[in-house]
Amino acid sequence: MTRYRITVEYDGTDFVGFQRQTNGPSVQAALEAAIEKFCGEKVTVHCAGRTDAGVHALGQVCHFDLAREREDDTVRDAINAHLRPLPVSVLSAARAAEDFHARFSAKGRAYRYRIVNRRAPLALESHRAWLVQTPLDVAAMHEAAQRLIGRHDFSTFRASECQAKTPVKTLDVLSVARTGEEIAIEARARSFLHHQVRNMVGTLRLVGEGKWSADDLSAALAACDRAKGGPTAPAEGLYLVEVIYPPP
Amino acid sequence: MTRYRITVEYDGTDFVGFQRQTNGPSVQAALEAAIEKFCGEKVTVHCAGRTDAGVHALGQVCHFDLAREREDDTVRDAINAHLRPLPVSVLSAARAAEDFHARFSAKGRAYRYRIVNRRAPLALESHRAWLVQTPLDVAAMHEAAQRLIGRHDFSTFRASECQAKTPVKTLDVLSVARTGEEIAIEARARSFLHHQVRNMVGTLRLVGEGKWSADDLSAALAACDRAKGGPTAPAEGLYLVEVIYPPP
Repeated sequence: MTRYRITVEYDGTDFVGFQRQTNGPSVQAALEAAIEKFCGEKVTVHCAGRTDAGVHALGQVCHFDLAREREDDTVRDAINAHLRPLPVSVLSAARAAEDFHARFSAKGRAYRYRIVNRRAPLALESHRAWLVQTPLDVAAMHEAAQRLIGRHDFSTFRASECQAKTPVKTLDVLSVARTGEEIAIEARARSFLHHQVRNMVGTLRLVGEGKWSADDLSAALAACDRAKGGPTAPAEGLYLVEVIYPPP
Repeated sequence: MTRYRITVEYDGTDFVGFQRQTNGPSVQAALEAAIEKFCGEKVTVHCAGRTDAGVHALGQVCHFDLAREREDDTVRDAINAHLRPLPVSVLSAARAAEDFHARFSAKGRAYRYRIVNRRAPLALESHRAWLVQTPLDVAAMHEAAQRLIGRHDFSTFRASECQAKTPVKTLDVLSVARTGEEIAIEARARSFLHHQVRNMVGTLRLVGEGKWSADDLSAALAACDRAKGGPTAPAEGLYLVEVIYPPP
């Protein structure tokens, strides 16, 4: 068997999420079907980050095994040919070490959350960003966000259905920056709890609106109670940007 | 009568263009219908740049007259409420001088053409950029583009169906710059011929691929013959970014 690592971009709008489910189309099923169409092999595609319904990826990483070895670029182009016209694209494919695992080998994940902060509805960025119509104080959001950096029990930002063994995670980066009417929130950690980024973003919105202080955010984190956090930001603004692996 | 000026964003993918036509939905018809729904007045909406089918706008400018005067923000929000769920959004509305004309008062128009230069198909930017899979030399494209700056007969880049009185136009800006895999071509002039930007972009692609030199581009311009220009770049990469008016 030869293991392949692929980097994948997708528009998550019309998928039930990365993972195969019985209730609708998934990115995983789309990839597995395209691989089978090109080479006749039934494979299981494993991903680094199991994105939810509506969440996008600029750089999801996956792996799978093929019985017959093929050229890297052939694998990329052939999967893409069979994915058409779905909004899923293999950016690159490369043979990987046999012990490489998209999920377990990853040492970091970078997500971006996009907010468009304006009164008017979204025409071009509909389903690709969260429209927040109340003016947000980005400097206050960024400053408060730094309270979440480091190793903490993130239960306040954890979805009830989260399957992680522990709510303790180490958050390396959480930055908030504005470019015109667009606000980008960058989050980076070894791994995240289910809905952690969206729950942090929904809570930072309260800070941006002046409803919460940075101290309120610290108190919410310390409470280790989801009921003390802000609402969950919608999936449509979230992008899995990059998965980081140790050098080979 | 009170004249209103509106700035409009739209995703042109599913429209036959800005202008009302018998063969499908237009941005003009969408705006006129929304205005009539909100205030009962049948108006004609005039625009600054009659974009083609599939062309997008970040800052199209239009005007129309209402018999009854209303607050600017009410006009914006009410039109937007009735546009839903179409991908057209009124960014701002303001009362204008009675002699303001979206098209004839404009003293400049800025367009952007987006190319994604990579092998893999577009997932997130499908219908929003032109995928060019051959590597493009952006420095060569930018340098050659400067040959088109100034006042010229642009017949080489003019669509046969163009209705302008003269093919002579003054091109103020034509810049080509790369950010990662994305190439942005910015074009600015008082006005453009029909398909002029798309024809210039399609020809610059030949320069980027090394098939044409800057001298070839100059010779094509001097020929004043559409048959001597390169192919027309697709509509999906083109955005009307801004319309410039003299200070009031």
